[in-house]
Amino acid sequence: MRTDLALEALGGAGQVPGVRVEEERGDGYAVTRVAVLDQEAAGRLGKPPGRYVTIEAPGFRTRDRGLQERISNALARELAAMLPSEASASFFVVGLGNWNATPDALGPEVVHRLLVTRHLKDYVPPDLRNGLRSVAALAPGVLGLTGIETGDIIRGIVQQIRPDMVIAVDALAARNVDRIMTTIQIADTGIHPGSGVGNHRAAVTQETLGIPVVAIGVPTVVHAQTIAYDTLDALARTLQDRSELFRALGQMPEQEKRRLIGEVLAPAVGDLMVTPKEIDVFVEEMATVVAGGLNAALHPGIDDVDLSPIFA
Amino acid sequence: MRTDLALEALGGAGQVPGVRVEEERGDGYAVTRVAVLDQEAAGRLGKPPGRYVTIEAPGFRTRDRGLQERISNALARELAAMLPSEASASFFVVGLGNWNATPDALGPEVVHRLLVTRHLKDYVPPDLRNGLRSVAALAPGVLGLTGIETGDIIRGIVQQIRPDMVIAVDALAARNVDRIMTTIQIADTGIHPGSGVGNHRAAVTQETLGIPVVAIGVPTVVHAQTIAYDTLDALARTLQDRSELFRALGQMPEQEKRRLIGEVLAPAVGDLMVTPKEIDVFVEEMATVVAGGLNAALHPGIDDVDLSPIFA
Amino acid sequence: MRTDLALEALGGAGQVPGVRVEEERGDGYAVTRVAVLDQEAAGRLGKPPGRYVTIEAPGFRTRDRGLQERISNALARELAAMLPSEASASFFVVGLGNWNATPDALGPEVVHRLLVTRHLKDYVPPDLRNGLRSVAALAPGVLGLTGIETGDIIRGIVQQIRPDMVIAVDALAARNVDRIMTTIQIADTGIHPGSGVGNHRAAVTQETLGIPVVAIGVPTVVHAQTIAYDTLDALARTLQDRSELFRALGQMPEQEKRRLIGEVLAPAVGDLMVTPKEIDVFVEEMATVVAGGLNAALHPGIDDVDLSPIFA
Amino acid sequence: MRTDLALEALGGAGQVPGVRVEEERGDGYAVTRVAVLDQEAAGRLGKPPGRYVTIEAPGFRTRDRGLQERISNALARELAAMLPSEASASFFVVGLGNWNATPDALGPEVVHRLLVTRHLKDYVPPDLRNGLRSVAALAPGVLGLTGIETGDIIRGIVQQIRPDMVIAVDALAARNVDRIMTTIQIADTGIHPGSGVGNHRAAVTQETLGIPVVAIGVPTVVHAQTIAYDTLDALARTLQDRSELFRALGQMPEQEKRRLIGEVLAPAVGDLMVTPKEIDVFVEEMATVVAGGLNAALHPGIDDVDLSPIFA
Repeated sequence: MRTDLALEALGGAGQVPGVRVEEERGDGYAVTRVAVLDQEAAGRLGKPPGRYVTIEAPGFRTRDRGLQERISNALARELAAMLPSEASASFFVVGLGNWNATPDALGPEVVHRLLVTRHLKDYVPPDLRNGLRSVAALAPGVLGLTGIETGDIIRGIVQQIRPDMVIAVDALAARNVDRIMTTIQIADTGIHPGSGVGNHRAAVTQETLGIPVVAIGVPTVVHAQTIAYDTLDALARTLQDRSELFRALGQMPEQEKRRLIGEVLAPAVGDLMVTPKEIDVFVEEMATVVAGGLNAALHPGIDDVDLSPIFA
Repeated sequence: MRTDLALEALGGAGQVPGVRVEEERGDGYAVTRVAVLDQEAAGRLGKPPGRYVTIEAPGFRTRDRGLQERISNALARELAAMLPSEASASFFVVGLGNWNATPDALGPEVVHRLLVTRHLKDYVPPDLRNGLRSVAALAPGVLGLTGIETGDIIRGIVQQIRPDMVIAVDALAARNVDRIMTTIQIADTGIHPGSGVGNHRAAVTQETLGIPVVAIGVPTVVHAQTIAYDTLDALARTLQDRSELFRALGQMPEQEKRRLIGEVLAPAVGDLMVTPKEIDVFVEEMATVVAGGLNAALHPGIDDVDLSPIFA
Repeated sequence: MRTDLALEALGGAGQVPGVRVEEERGDGYAVTRVAVLDQEAAGRLGKPPGRYVTIEAPGFRTRDRGLQERISNALARELAAMLPSEASASFFVVGLGNWNATPDALGPEVVHRLLVTRHLKDYVPPDLRNGLRSVAALAPGVLGLTGIETGDIIRGIVQQIRPDMVIAVDALAARNVDRIMTTIQIADTGIHPGSGVGNHRAAVTQETLGIPVVAIGVPTVVHAQTIAYDTLDALARTLQDRSELFRALGQMPEQEKRRLIGEVLAPAVGDLMVTPKEIDVFVEEMATVVAGGLNAALHPGIDDVDLSPIFA
Repeated sequence: MRTDLALEALGGAGQVPGVRVEEERGDGYAVTRVAVLDQEAAGRLGKPPGRYVTIEAPGFRTRDRGLQERISNALARELAAMLPSEASASFFVVGLGNWNATPDALGPEVVHRLLVTRHLKDYVPPDLRNGLRSVAALAPGVLGLTGIETGDIIRGIVQQIRPDMVIAVDALAARNVDRIMTTIQIADTGIHPGSGVGNHRAAVTQETLGIPVVAIGVPTVVHAQTIAYDTLDALARTLQDRSELFRALGQMPEQEKRRLIGEVLAPAVGDLMVTPKEIDVFVEEMATVVAGGLNAALHPGIDDVDLSPIFA
């Protein structure tokens, strides 16, 4: 089963050749930096070579405001390490996803909270401009709404405004339910086809755009198949522990498992998503956290006091 | 596992004492009228005595406009049989649920599309008033938003405006994924605690309000536990067919199944819901269908031509 | 021309018998406390006897976050003087107006940001409950949406939940364009028919509900007639000064006309649509300020740190 | 005073050299086709040479559904005369304006209701494709939201997807209050800087994009200055007639002032906030009418029955 998270792709596998893992603990959260160093490791994980930083905060859903600000700050720090440091650098932030479908609306909601400045550069006096870098932003919608591949919209605009970097924000599908709304992933590898909650997205990468692309993703759903699959796995584990008779379940062929799951979920046409009942509140709060981290990383010259509005 | 649908509670059980079942087929949909006739049958089904009408349209999600209008008409006919027929009858329609959470927003969305007339009675000339009955409507929100039990809000307003009947519209949780957005249930028994997508609702019934309550419900979600539970059942069926070794799974104690499912879903705090990715579009279209049926049943004197606006 | 603001009704009239006026300056805002002491004064002003507190902050529209917090704190202080001080006091906040019409949506937007607690009282441990008073809240909509007089909805709910006080939040129509989104009025006299942006509202007062009603209002519009009226007044003033010269008004130079219009519209900076073009942003920000002040006044035991989330 | 409407620029001027005017009456509406034939006429009107079609329906605000459908059909016919007729023609519809500010949200609301097909071309079977032309659509937001000139976004996308024509939908500012939400203008001249409710828009024309641009505009506001200006004009007209009597304008009776104001505001029935209080409902309904006309003109091969969904 595929996952948008490098950390899940890595699994509990311990040391993997061609992959460097670095961990750090904060107050209520953990940061894991995974570097996929070569093509072989990339093939094994199903993730292109590059840096993947994951911020995990199991307590995010408790709606603890202090924790949310700490996560936002951690995000700002990790982003700063991936973004160019020049005061003259210019950015184009793209909020991917469908604003009409709550679990897919994270990207547009982040864009809504960004400090957009590209058009102000000419009006803002130089002494205030200190720390204010050029930021443009757009939520381009999804193919079903526009009839245009998101990648084409982004490429067209990039060719007009020539930013130094694209930052793409997207809602992801996770492998495990406990990742929903508790994890933020940053990657310097861009967005690859098939990621995100909407699954037919075109690539948004340095290859397709000609400039670096940093991707920020937050899992908001798990595919319903995952629940069925995990149930089988949990059963197999239980049975292996306690019974000769059921040993074989652990060896049940993949194909057979898929058939079973199909039997459970087939009657419902289309993609079934598992998402918390309170998803709307979580998306709003996570968008605030991500936008806060982004604003701080994009405008490093603006101090804490001035940043406070962002949390409103 | 509990379900909000009488038809699911009945299962494939064939004839049940104290329950009368009547079926009718339409073009693209089926109507089933279940009458729970006595307390014994009610206890067995977990549904109070009364009439439960279910309209099933597996093709609803194909977004076929013609089918949607036929379902709307069928709903109008079935409602007409439960509503008082007097031209002087007055109604209070309550849209239950949380407008901020898409799968729970059906009730508020229906209220938004209703032909509300109670305040017009004094202004509309008598010849136009023909067929226009008195309709008031409110979406009272949920306990977490108002701090007030929904039942208390409704009772308070009923005592002020003294309608002849309350009609409560609500999003339901189904037992099977194929019921999501394909089924409408009408019941003359009102709303009972624990129904709906939000699960702490107070009773809205003739007992609590002193006037008849008709409930209209549409399943918009399935609880995630259901997926896990169904996976185990499907596995048990498969294994029983083909293997001596796995016979015992069919006899796995209920308690053990629950423990397993807990293992899969526990890490995610709170209620996980399974819902289609396109839920926003479905809720909008289903609200149009339900409001269309309601408007026609509430104002039987208004002919087709005048009703067309309702579909906008 | 009528106005919802006592301060405008008072005009620049200096001392008026039966009216006590008290002024106080803050950083970026001014507080004026008007007490209408007897029926005679009430008749003269068209405002029932009672206390009217006005907070004026001409800079509100500059979107200065610091100023907004100071206004919110000032509002909390002024409200505290009107609200009961008992820890056991219970409140019902009503957000009047139509959420579909931006300039009329202030009340519903404030309710959306309130710390609603009435339903938590049973769950919150006593030591945390310290300072958390019972607050219920509802945005009942308008007559055209529900078919029910707003006053009836409120009265019905008050009879069910028996709060000690109703607080009604409403958008107002001002007399002068420079009051739009720069003024907050608090009154202990409740809401009287004909106030607000929607003009057919029923009374929400101690007389109709049996408990005290505090009204919080913010002007969001000016009636278009006002603009024309003001134009004539300005013209008349000009002509009285120099009436010989301008006898033939038909020959008044274009330039002079523009100057005149400037005199009428100058106090309101920018593009005035009579409701400002940016009304949506202003309503959002003003709702945050009002909800912040209300939350602080309703829950005086909660300190600043805990209140910060309210600004999100 | 400038206006976005060619018909208003023309005034009641009767025959103007270099301008051809053609009128046609429908049931409840009138169509006026103005052709600006040369640069001299263009300079006189402040409108570039081209075709300007205006549909006027004073009764639009009565919310008569039948009238709305007739207007939608008239719009479809007039558009058909400006659009290429080839079945292979491809279109890019741009909804200009700010979705957060109701009177400026018309463009985005129209885009939301469009039959977008560009991405379906590969999946739809050829026999169904009959009449389904390639349509892409985007609401790019405004400079303050994105930091990018709208013209740059459009040009970038046009260069990627190479449509045969751009159709830009925009909310306009009218000169007279009675035009608000009663008039639709179609022009084959594109969008010129300074038009629209937001007034700093870049040009979207054949010159800037290299392909034809049709603009559809609907007045949703009048500038507040207009009201004051009109008041003076009305006053001046009155005085010229009877200047002896009213020499001392300062003594003009109250009653007379009211009559004057009535003369200014009478054409717009009801409470004018200069944008009407019910602007939200009008924008929704006008967006439905415009999208209906657009969908019919863009997909001429789809018959009436299939078009009905568009009105939902």
